[in-house]
Formats: sequence, structure tokens, C-alpha cells
Amino acid sequence: MLREFAINKVHIKDTFWNYYVKNIKNKTIPFQYKVMDNDMDINIEREREDESLPAEKSNALENFRIAAGLKDGEHYGWFFQDSDVYKWLEAVSYSLQISPDKELEELADSVIDLIGKAQEKDGYLQTFFQVKFPNRKYRELHYSHELYCAGHLMEAAIGYTEATGKRELLQIALKVVDNIAKHFGYEEGKIQGADGHQEIELALAKLYEFTGKKKYLDLAVFFIDVRGKDPLFYDKQVEQNNKDGITNDYPKIDLKYLQAYTQPKKQTKAVGHAVRMLYMATGMARIAKHSNDEQLFMACKEIWRDVISKKMYITAGVGSTVHGEAFTGEYDLPNDTMYCETCASIALIYFAYEMFKIEPKAEYIEIMERALYNGVLSGASIEGKHFFYVNPLEVYPSISKNNPGQGHVKYQRPNWLGCACCPPNFARTIGSIQRYFYTWDEEGQIIYSNLFVASKLDFPGGSLEQMTEFPKQNRVKYHLKTDGQFATLKIRIPQWLKNPLLYVEGIPVEMNLIDGYVELKRKWNGEIVELVFETPVLAVTANPNVVADVNRIAIQRGPFVYCAESIDNEEKLQTYHVNPKNLERAKVCYQPGILNGITQLMVEADHELVDKSWQETLYQFNFKGNIEKKELTLIPYYSWGNRGECEMVVWLYK
Amino acid sequence: MLREFAINKVHIKDTFWNYYVKNIKNKTIPFQYKVMDNDMDINIEREREDESLPAEKSNALENFRIAAGLKDGEHYGWFFQDSDVYKWLEAVSYSLQISPDKELEELADSVIDLIGKAQEKDGYLQTFFQVKFPNRKYRELHYSHELYCAGHLMEAAIGYTEATGKRELLQIALKVVDNIAKHFGYEEGKIQGADGHQEIELALAKLYEFTGKKKYLDLAVFFIDVRGKDPLFYDKQVEQNNKDGITNDYPKIDLKYLQAYTQPKKQTKAVGHAVRMLYMATGMARIAKHSNDEQLFMACKEIWRDVISKKMYITAGVGSTVHGEAFTGEYDLPNDTMYCETCASIALIYFAYEMFKIEPKAEYIEIMERALYNGVLSGASIEGKHFFYVNPLEVYPSISKNNPGQGHVKYQRPNWLGCACCPPNFARTIGSIQRYFYTWDEEGQIIYSNLFVASKLDFPGGSLEQMTEFPKQNRVKYHLKTDGQFATLKIRIPQWLKNPLLYVEGIPVEMNLIDGYVELKRKWNGEIVELVFETPVLAVTANPNVVADVNRIAIQRGPFVYCAESIDNEEKLQTYHVNPKNLERAKVCYQPGILNGITQLMVEADHELVDKSWQETLYQFNFKGNIEKKELTLIPYYSWGNRGECEMVVWLYK
Repeated sequence: MLREFAINKVHIKDTFWNYYVKNIKNKTIPFQYKVMDNDMDINIEREREDESLPAEKSNALENFRIAAGLKDGEHYGWFFQDSDVYKWLEAVSYSLQISPDKELEELADSVIDLIGKAQEKDGYLQTFFQVKFPNRKYRELHYSHELYCAGHLMEAAIGYTEATGKRELLQIALKVVDNIAKHFGYEEGKIQGADGHQEIELALAKLYEFTGKKKYLDLAVFFIDVRGKDPLFYDKQVEQNNKDGITNDYPKIDLKYLQAYTQPKKQTKAVGHAVRMLYMATGMARIAKHSNDEQLFMACKEIWRDVISKKMYITAGVGSTVHGEAFTGEYDLPNDTMYCETCASIALIYFAYEMFKIEPKAEYIEIMERALYNGVLSGASIEGKHFFYVNPLEVYPSISKNNPGQGHVKYQRPNWLGCACCPPNFARTIGSIQRYFYTWDEEGQIIYSNLFVASKLDFPGGSLEQMTEFPKQNRVKYHLKTDGQFATLKIRIPQWLKNPLLYVEGIPVEMNLIDGYVELKRKWNGEIVELVFETPVLAVTANPNVVADVNRIAIQRGPFVYCAESIDNEEKLQTYHVNPKNLERAKVCYQPGILNGITQLMVEADHELVDKSWQETLYQFNFKGNIEKKELTLIPYYSWGNRGECEMVVWLYK
Repeated sequence: MLREFAINKVHIKDTFWNYYVKNIKNKTIPFQYKVMDNDMDINIEREREDESLPAEKSNALENFRIAAGLKDGEHYGWFFQDSDVYKWLEAVSYSLQISPDKELEELADSVIDLIGKAQEKDGYLQTFFQVKFPNRKYRELHYSHELYCAGHLMEAAIGYTEATGKRELLQIALKVVDNIAKHFGYEEGKIQGADGHQEIELALAKLYEFTGKKKYLDLAVFFIDVRGKDPLFYDKQVEQNNKDGITNDYPKIDLKYLQAYTQPKKQTKAVGHAVRMLYMATGMARIAKHSNDEQLFMACKEIWRDVISKKMYITAGVGSTVHGEAFTGEYDLPNDTMYCETCASIALIYFAYEMFKIEPKAEYIEIMERALYNGVLSGASIEGKHFFYVNPLEVYPSISKNNPGQGHVKYQRPNWLGCACCPPNFARTIGSIQRYFYTWDEEGQIIYSNLFVASKLDFPGGSLEQMTEFPKQNRVKYHLKTDGQFATLKIRIPQWLKNPLLYVEGIPVEMNLIDGYVELKRKWNGEIVELVFETPVLAVTANPNVVADVNRIAIQRGPFVYCAESIDNEEKLQTYHVNPKNLERAKVCYQPGILNGITQLMVEADHELVDKSWQETLYQFNFKGNIEKKELTLIPYYSWGNRGECEMVVWLYK
């Protein structure tokens, strides 16, 4: 089993990721605070076309003030709005761990103080129910998100305690957990069901890792065990509420949507709401790791296999439909109506990393990397104040603007969303990117280098420096110091590179890959390890079962999936046809001035000319088209949608 | 201006269409009666995935009994359920015109008697409002369908009077119209708005044609003029109802959905609900024809152009989205999420034929033919008791079953639908197919032969016999007798035929096409005109603006669009790739035993082998696939979905 390094032990030297980490600190975090405090004059957009969705303001902090009795007013926004604040605090925590900042810490302290004031004496905390429906606490778990919010609170509390040593937020969180433990469990009289939206499971297991207290792991185990045990649990709650005169409705509860149709350990497929599914899987893996629950781990493996071999976009986006923000069937990966919520790709990263810690195979890191560099990074604008909820793989504004089935697809990132789960999730995830660079074993004798990022890792008894200009250059040097101890350095050799050559102190070393890593075991005295490789422009072919991608290729170079935007080309991107053979001659061109520095690709394409005969008709018999050679310019997918509304396509036509 | 022949003057000799006309009489009409009388033990399906839609029974006749006071009970079904009965009566009328049937006529008389009993003294008739909301009559026009139902009643009444000479139904209809005229109009105190669902406009204009009474045309003109004149009309009705305590809700009225955002004469685009749009356009054209309203006709032409050059599927299906059963934007023609309601293609036929009567150009008949042989004919099963609402161009059941965005797509025709507009619409339209074969001018000196169908036309002073085994054979003989009068025979030369040769009494005649027709003017003494041609297997290319059809071809032969079903091939139809060049060598094979006799096509395809490497992954770099040559079998699109659930594709991959 592997473990993470504390993020303040991993120092980024890399320009690519450093930009994001600093930008999150300098721009995203202050911006998000102001939005949550209703202090920004911005246009908040609905996450999908549904006028009943709240989108006038965030109100997240105001809700706490109202719950604390400091202000009068009504709760506004989603019932889970509190979690925005918690995720923001978690992002702040990582930022403070990386670079202390007194002013920011004071701001966070004030928020924590407010949260403490809002908490009830018995520990209960969720402003929506406190303000609006105090008699419904823990009684509408199919939608309430109470334990979901508690989970995010725990994650924030752990982060903040690590960052500052201050325990106020942790006390609040532990009080919430105590309250939950008092109400939930297999003991008679307690609630024997789980939150409709998973999150507390992974958070409780994290709390166990942080505190070492087994009671938290036990509670996590309970929530994973009780889920789906009685599939009628939620209906019974509803019935009881109606009986008690608390409510008067019979909502239809979709057990697949919330993965409660059977116990998680018996689940083998990724179904329903994608974020719930993958938060649950993350929790399952984390619990299985500590409880040695083989059945639970096997369920994780089956779910993992189902996602990555049947239900994942090339960008590591997941969730093929807006209806329930959900997984659909096998190989159903439409490029224009999909959902691919930023949070879902984030959840996939969490799941992948937990799986990797149990089973150190590169296949997990490959998916994690795919999500980090593509489906997650696309979730925010380059300048850090605009966010996607939905990350499409293809956008033709002239079409999707008039098609309600694509009403959830936006072409530019809004400043904020009515359901603002993604923006702070982006901040906390990319804001702690360091945790994914290296992993080590329990004994501290093996270090895994997962990603190519210029950085320095400090660990007890040594350090590891990774020197590289990747992705601009294909040369990575490692400088490992362990005071002469035996230690193993494992370097992941990604599938997207070609002709890797490994040198130790300039002497070529044979590369035997084990589970996708090359292994160097020796007494280290500061030897230089050097890896040199090529990053060809790759044609990606999708599984022939994926109907949406037939006769098409995607282009990848290094970890980056590429896309074409019409701003760099002509409109009607569908009229460009790329022969995979032409990729060998693609021009690779680093552009420091575009989109904060990207590597563009220029590929020769057959460009179909739309002649005048087509103005009159939709269909022609035995038509022979005219083709001209034209260069197609491609940019990394994550950077799309930053230069005004235009067409964008990942899967190019052959 | 052209006019139709009475359908009992056109005698079908053709096996293809005769089968349908007889089947509608012998099977469809009796079956539909029993369904409407709740006397069939069938599974009625919802037209789309929405559990609030009524689907337990039809109840259409029972609703009349309840309204008539003959039975106790509640109205059940859609508020426009009455129109099912009217459309059925219209289908019966045409059947009786073609072949009298005492028993059927008695059944129809009994239904007419019932309708008469349900009608109120003042003429008002719509069972939903009579039974459920008598105080809301004509007060909720945005959804009420009261004038829509009246329109269908008029059409049935005209048909039944023509068929039987009996005037009872006509009296009922005229009484309804009188009631409407009393309540609607520009005079003070009258309602100055139109029904949310168009239909009365085209029906009133037809009533004018039938009765010669200008007041009906004037009322039609009023409804086309008043629509959209005050875009707030419907909201004002709602407001007034709320004020008067009749209702207490504020529905959001989408004026584009019901084409009331501006006056029809100012409309230039096909927007909103497709059936409403095209019923309105049909009414506009019919009114413009009689009122010589140039502006209205120009609007029709613009709408027509918008539909056929930007918004129509190759099957003549229209309505690209389930959301509002509506048109979307230009060139947005997805093959798997579309709607393509049978009624919408029927409406397109009506519109096309009205336009042709004003402007006798083959382009209108081409679209009409495309709809008849494809998008409309697919609306019913071969045996005539199962009906599609939605006519997709591509179905992969394994995908669409799990994708809620395709929840409205069915793979087999249900017996009936909760909203049963399509089944009787199919019966009345295909059951009077004769009306489309020939058209003549006002003076009775020009006869247009629009379609190749073995048939005999009687007209005052002569007859025209068309002898052909088309579509089985490509040879058509015309035998025109006019007692030696000058007369012009115009024969449409479709775009899908090749190398046509025309002979009069065996002597070749040069063919000069005028507006798509070849013209033969002479004193006819029974000369034989013969047309011989080829019907090559055609590769159809879609306009490059249609993203959904890039790198794909459709196949057409004669008027039939073809499709592949996996029952004739292997599953995963997306793995078949067809080079258009191979179509020259396609095998054309008439199969009398399959699907009531169809012409199959066999085309050589490159069949991609899905190797084992794909079990593990979704994406591969620089993948080289393996191809085998394989024959792909195609069937006419209209006949798909008759042999059990399987995949179906119209647009094949190149």
C-alpha cells in the first residue's frame, strides 16, 4: 500500500503547474470568496436549461450568517450550498500549506468562526435545514446532502489543521461527526441508511487516516455497508414524514441514480449520477485499503474496469447524459450531448489515486493524468475566474444554440454557476496538484514518480529533485539523495512517449517495465538519472463499439488531448478531414504568447469546399466534392473556449 | 392553380399501394375503432419518457358518451383526444369512397350519432372541456386544441359527405363552426386570438372549397391574420382566468413553439412544434391560393425553402428534437435523438401538395414523394396495427435503451400511443393516397402525372390509364383518352431516374423538362405513351453543413431511401464501411416473401473486425484495423422495425 506525501513537501519548479497553483491563490480563491459573499457583480448562469434552478446569487456565506442568527433572511440556493464554502476552505488550506499568507488565513479564520456560530449545540450543521426545515433534519436523506456537506467539512478541516495547526474547524467537524454517529448506525433506534449523495464515506476514511481513530473508519464502513441494504429505505423515510405530517409528497426515488439499488460491495457497473458514483468508489477503495475488505476492493476493480473500458471519454470526462448528470450504457459516448462534469473527472482522479495506492499500477495514473491535463483542467479558464460545469468534446454553436437537447452545453465558461460544485472543486484539486507527482510505500523505501513535472520532493532522510522543461522538452533528470540508503526509484513511463532512453550517470540502463514503471534500486548518493524520449503526435482511435467516433481520430501529444477551434481555422470544422498518416509530418510549435503558452499542432488536412450547389438543397445524388489542402491548427483541449465563442472539435473526421 | 381529382375517380391497379389501402380498410380501421372503444387488450405506450402522460387506455369514444350524458365517468386522455375519432372518421370516409361498405358505414353512422349527442345546443363540442372544465371553454387557447379538434371534425365531415351524401356530420361541423364564428373575430367583444395548435385554418379553407361559402374562407383568413398579432394574447387569457378565479397558474407560453411570435405572413422560418408549423403553412398556402394573398404566399415559399434546404431529413422526416417535438436550427439533423413524428411528415405532404397546386413545380412533388415512400410509410407496420410516433434514422438499442436523451425512440412500433395523433393520421393520409397521383388545372385541360403508380383516372370526357409494375419494373405506359380534345399530359420525371426515354406510339419523343415535367400536348385518341428509364442505386451525400452526416452516405433507389438492419447483417452496423463506388455493382433483388415484398440491395462493404485488444480499452494510439470484405444487405427504410428489435442505420459510414 502506498501513501501520499504531504503537499508542502513537494515543491513545484515547473512553469505549467506553478501558474495554476499561483493563480488559484492570487485570483481564484479571492474571486470565489467574493462570489460566495454576494460581493461580485457577475452573471451567474444556470448549469442547465431549467428556469427553476437558483442562479441569482451564491448566498453561501449569507446562509451561514442567517443560520447563526447574525442576519435575518431566507436561505437561498441549493440545499448543499454550504459545501461550496467547505471546498473553498479546503482550497485555501492547500494554498496556505504551499505558501503561508497571513491575510488569507485571517479571512479563512473569520469564515471558520462564522461556521462555528452557525453550528447547533448538538453539533448539527447544514444551513438549509436549520433555516428552512428544522423538523426535517436527517429525514430526507434521498436528497438532503447533509452527510455530503459533512464530508466536505471534514476534508476542509483536515486540510486546515495540516496547514495552520489550528483546530477550530476540526472541532466543528468532529462535533458534526459525533452528531452523525449519534443518529446513524446499526444500533436500534438509529437511522440505517446513507446520504443520497456520497462523500462522507471517503471523508470519514480520510479522517481515520488523519486521526488514527478507528471509530471514524467504522462509521465509514457502516455507510458503505448500509447503502442499498434496504432499497426501500428512502421511500420509508418519505412515508414516515408524510405520516408524521412533516411533508406531503411522494417523490420518485431513482435508486440507480444514487447507487442504492444494492450494496456497493455487490455493485459492478458504473451507473447513475457520475460524481456520486465516483465519490462512492473513492470511498470504497479508501475503506477497502484500511479494512482489507477484498470483496469491496473487487467491486472497486469491476467499477473501475467498467468506467475506463466502456464509459470514459478520451478527455477522461465521464457522464454521457445531462439527464441525472449520469453514466449511460456501454460505449455510449456522444460528443455533443454528453455531460462530462468537471467534478466527475475530479472524482475519477480521486478514485484512480486510491486504487493506485492499493495496487501500484500505471494504468491508474494514466487515467489520472488524462483527467488532470484534459477533462479537469478544461474546467477553468486560463485566467482562473470562469468555470465550466459541462465539458463537451464538440461544439457547433450555430447548432447547439437552437437544440434544447444541448441546452446544458456552454461555449464559454461562466463566472459562476447556480450549482457551484465545480469551481471550488477545481480550486481544491488543482490547487493541491503536488500530491499526485510522487507516492511512496508504507516503509518509505520506494518512491514512485508518477508525472513529469519539474519539482523537488523532501522526505525524511533525503530528497528527490526532478529537473525538466516538460512538456516543452522531452528530457527529465532525477537527482535522488538518500544518504546512501537502499532505496527504489520508480519512474512511470507513459504510453504516449516513444523510444525512451534511460541513463544513470550518463550510462545507458536497460528498461524493464513493471506495471508501467521502470525500477531503479540502489544506494543513492546523488546520482543523476536521466530519461530522454520522444513525444510523437499520436492518432487516437476509439473502440469500434463507440458509434460516435467512427471514421474519426483524436490527436494526442504527451498527456494532452488536442482539439481544433474555428478561431484558428475556418468555420465548419466538420469540413476538415485528417489522414492519420499526415500526423507524422505535423508541425509542433510552442506559442508562448497564446493562451498562457501552449504547444500548437499544425496538421495537413483535406478541406472540403462547400460549393454553391449546396445553398439550394440538403441532399445530392452521386455528389463529387472538391477538396483543397489546408493546414488545420490544433490546441490542447484544456485551453479551448478562452477566446470567444467558436466551434470546437476533438474527434476529427478522417 | 391546380386542383385534386376526387379520390373515387382514381382507381389503383398497383400492388404496392393497393395493399396499404386495402389493409387500412380491412385491418387498420377496425383495429383503431376497437382501440378507441377500449375494446382491445393491447399495451398502449407513452410517446416519450414522461410518466405523467396518459397511456392506460384511449377512451376516445367513451369521452363522447360521457359528454353526451349516456355514461357516467371522467374524461380520460389528452384534451385533444376527440380528434382521434375525427381522423378515424375521415379515414373511414375515404375508404367508403373507394369501396362502399354497408357495415362500416353503419358503424361510422353510430359514431356520428354519438358525436351529435355530445354536441351542446349552442354548437360547442370538445368533450374534455365539456366534462372537465365547462367554465374554461375558449379561455385557454394556448393549449386547448378546441379549434384544432374542430378542424379535424370539418375534414371528416367533408369526407363523409362526399363518400355517403349524408349530411349529419357536416351539420355538426357547421354548427361547431357557427359557434366558433360567434365567439371569434375582430368584432368587439369577440376573441381575437387563434388556437395554439393550428389545423382549423387549413380545414376552414377546405370547407370553403367544399361549400363555396366565402364566410368560411374569411374565418380562415381571420385565424391566420390574428395569430401573433398580439403576442401577449395567450398571457392575457391566462391573466383574465386567474383574475376571474377560474384558474390559478401562470404557465410559461413559448410563442415560438406555437408560431405566434409574429403574424404568419411575416414568418420566414420553420420554428417550433413541427406539426403545428406545417399545418399552419398548409393553411396559409390554401388560403393564399383563394385569397390571392401574395405576402402570405411569399411567407409560405420562405418557410418551404427553410424546411427543405435546411431542416429536413432524407426520409422527409422533420422535427430535430423531442423537446417541443420541434424544429431546431439550420442543418441540425441528428440521426439518433431526432423526433421525426409521423404526423410531421404527413403535414409536410399536405404543405407540399398545396404549394404544388399554386405553383406546379416538381420540387414540391419530389418532397411529397419522399415523405410518402419513406417518413410517412414508416409510421405503420406492414400488417397495419402498429405505429411509430418517432421515426429515427439510426437505432442502436444497446445504446439508446440506456440513454434518457433517446428515451422517445422506440425500436418496434407499439399498437397504440398515449398521444395517438399519428395512427389515424396515417390511416386517413395513406388511405387516400390516390389524391396525389394526378392533379389537373382549373380548366381541365392539363393533367399532371405526379407519381408512377398503376392506376386508372376517370375525368369528365376521358380517362387516363397508367400501366406499370413500378417499382418492380422501370417501364410506365400511359393510355390517355379525351375524345379527340386538345389536352396536355404532364409526366413528372423524377431526379432519381436515369436515361429516360419517351415514346408516343413507339416513336421516340424528345424530352424537354419544364419544372420537372415533360409535356405532351395533342388531340388524344388513345395513343400509348411509354416511358422507359433506369433506377440506379444512388449514393446520397448530405449537405456538408450537416455535421451528423459527415463521412457518410445514404442509399436511395427510386423513391425509396434504404437502411441496413442488423437482422440482415451482423450487429455493430457502424463497423460496415461502404465506398460509394461499390454501389454500381450493388445487387438488386426483389424478395416477394420478405416484408410483404421488398427490393433488397446487397452492397460490398469493408467490414471492420473488432479484435480482442478492444475488450480492454476504449482508446488506442496509431491503431491499424483489420478489414474483411462483406456484403451489406439493405431494405427500404419504410419497412424497418418489422422483424424484432435490432440495429438500424440509414446513413452508412464511408
